[in-house]
Amino acid sequence: MNAPEQRLPDIADIEAAAARLAGFAVTTPLLEAPALGARVGGRVMVKAECLQRTGSFKFRGAYNALAQLDQAARPRGVVAYSSGNHAQGVAAAAKVLGMPATIVMPADAPRIKVENTRSHGAEIVFYDRYRDQREAIAQRIAAERGAELLPPYDDARIIAGQGTIGLELAAQARALNLTLDGVIAPCSGGGLVSGIALALASASPGTSVYAAEPKGLDDMRRSLARGERVANDPDNRTICDALMAAIPGVLTFALARRFLVDSLVVSDEEVERAMADAFAEVKLVAEPSGAAALAAVLEGRLDAAGRTVAVVLSGGNVDRDRFAAALARG
Amino acid sequence: MNAPEQRLPDIADIEAAAARLAGFAVTTPLLEAPALGARVGGRVMVKAECLQRTGSFKFRGAYNALAQLDQAARPRGVVAYSSGNHAQGVAAAAKVLGMPATIVMPADAPRIKVENTRSHGAEIVFYDRYRDQREAIAQRIAAERGAELLPPYDDARIIAGQGTIGLELAAQARALNLTLDGVIAPCSGGGLVSGIALALASASPGTSVYAAEPKGLDDMRRSLARGERVANDPDNRTICDALMAAIPGVLTFALARRFLVDSLVVSDEEVERAMADAFAEVKLVAEPSGAAALAAVLEGRLDAAGRTVAVVLSGGNVDRDRFAAALARG
Repeated sequence: MNAPEQRLPDIADIEAAAARLAGFAVTTPLLEAPALGARVGGRVMVKAECLQRTGSFKFRGAYNALAQLDQAARPRGVVAYSSGNHAQGVAAAAKVLGMPATIVMPADAPRIKVENTRSHGAEIVFYDRYRDQREAIAQRIAAERGAELLPPYDDARIIAGQGTIGLELAAQARALNLTLDGVIAPCSGGGLVSGIALALASASPGTSVYAAEPKGLDDMRRSLARGERVANDPDNRTICDALMAAIPGVLTFALARRFLVDSLVVSDEEVERAMADAFAEVKLVAEPSGAAALAAVLEGRLDAAGRTVAVVLSGGNVDRDRFAAALARG
Repeated sequence: MNAPEQRLPDIADIEAAAARLAGFAVTTPLLEAPALGARVGGRVMVKAECLQRTGSFKFRGAYNALAQLDQAARPRGVVAYSSGNHAQGVAAAAKVLGMPATIVMPADAPRIKVENTRSHGAEIVFYDRYRDQREAIAQRIAAERGAELLPPYDDARIIAGQGTIGLELAAQARALNLTLDGVIAPCSGGGLVSGIALALASASPGTSVYAAEPKGLDDMRRSLARGERVANDPDNRTICDALMAAIPGVLTFALARRFLVDSLVVSDEEVERAMADAFAEVKLVAEPSGAAALAAVLEGRLDAAGRTVAVVLSGGNVDRDRFAAALARG
């Protein structure tokens, strides 16, 4: 079993990741939303990562990590624990590379997520979420098979992969003759936003980078304020099912302290409104977690008046009932 | 009042349109839908025109036409009749060019299309879809004001503008190392699909181009079969509110006869299923009319087995209730 890469990534890692991903990941469009810009008195650009392979940004980090394994390691496969977007990203990346993938999922995971993960050819191992330790199960399987255990965010290769979004943002803004005053991305463990912030620190140093978190799961905001990693109350709940990591990662928090301005908090109701606005004004499907950063801008948490801000719409894996409910209420 | 350009456009007109649109229209992404491709046994690419300015392809033709008016004509403005997407395209293009716009719309047009047209600064004049002659109303207003009457499809400038999608398709397919066996686009008056077919006849001559029409409004299919323009039964109805033109245009039919393989017919139920599939598998919002070409592929009307087909998802301007109903039934 290989260990996660527990070192801080740098801009060279992100540039190398971009080269690996070329031709495999989608260069997702940066779309202007004029109606939303008019509402906040600035320009609102949307980075449409819901259009990424597997419907979320997670393919980037997973592919960047797995593509670096040597040929001898590939047949032994990859193991990951996730009931959502990381599972699909790992399964799809492994399939592209011809590697077996094993995903450890709770026995009561929504059938659609199980089916999507299985559709990429992954083996699913179920666990009892009230009895078993998913990390221990994944570690045991990885050890038995000599497989790579790929963590969801606290890994230099994962962070560098997600950071390629930052390089694309800088290049796309240049092509559109825009100066990005601010960029905001949803934050769970922090791999996405810390990777983007690291990229923009080099590629667009004048850009302020923010995280967006759900109310009650704002561990990154509180950790930044305290200067050390603090955990969420495990009893707190949100409709943002992909933003429920217990605590920031060690690596992601180190990058966040250096490169993030702040983390901004949004409620479930605000997220549903942002999902409805993404539907009506951008014609994109956003899952709740994917709309958190857009919510922070539309609710004025990030002041966009007279500025140009880019919002990462990080994923679109949402079931019909959940989406219809957001349209009805939002 | 100026007359529509009643001559057949050629590839040079489309190339000139592409140059005019650069920096004003969105170069919409060509996205692979692997899950949908797996279902039909081929590769399914989606040209996401719902991400175009104003939420449909119509901005392209409108801007291409209005940008060619001389400075003296611009202050007299533009008049158009449209159930919605052409209205928004004309209104937005006029606004970019600093021209006044008057739109003649059916009183039962989707609310989102009325509101969006108004949001671009256009004046709206309503008519009864089943009682009034919209062309006559628009002609009278244009004559009174000396304004440009911009028809929705039967105009060389409009067809050339929509045809820029064909040039983009050819270039994007090349960049992805794809050979496009087939391209299919929704068809009302035929401006979109005839422009694309004209472009691809030069830019990708091996590609077969098809139209998609709603059941009961398949005037293009019947006209192609008969070798002359035939009209729809005016009593027929469809949820595809943007695909209800009474008869193919003179210019569009002339191009269709030369460059289209056929027009394929889909039912409202099939369109709703395609909307739900675009939601779940491509993360895009499709209006009913926008999903007609995708429906034709997913229902096997266009056989995609072992082939690479590109589907034009032509618009995303749909009310929440209509969309939620499609998700519930599709």
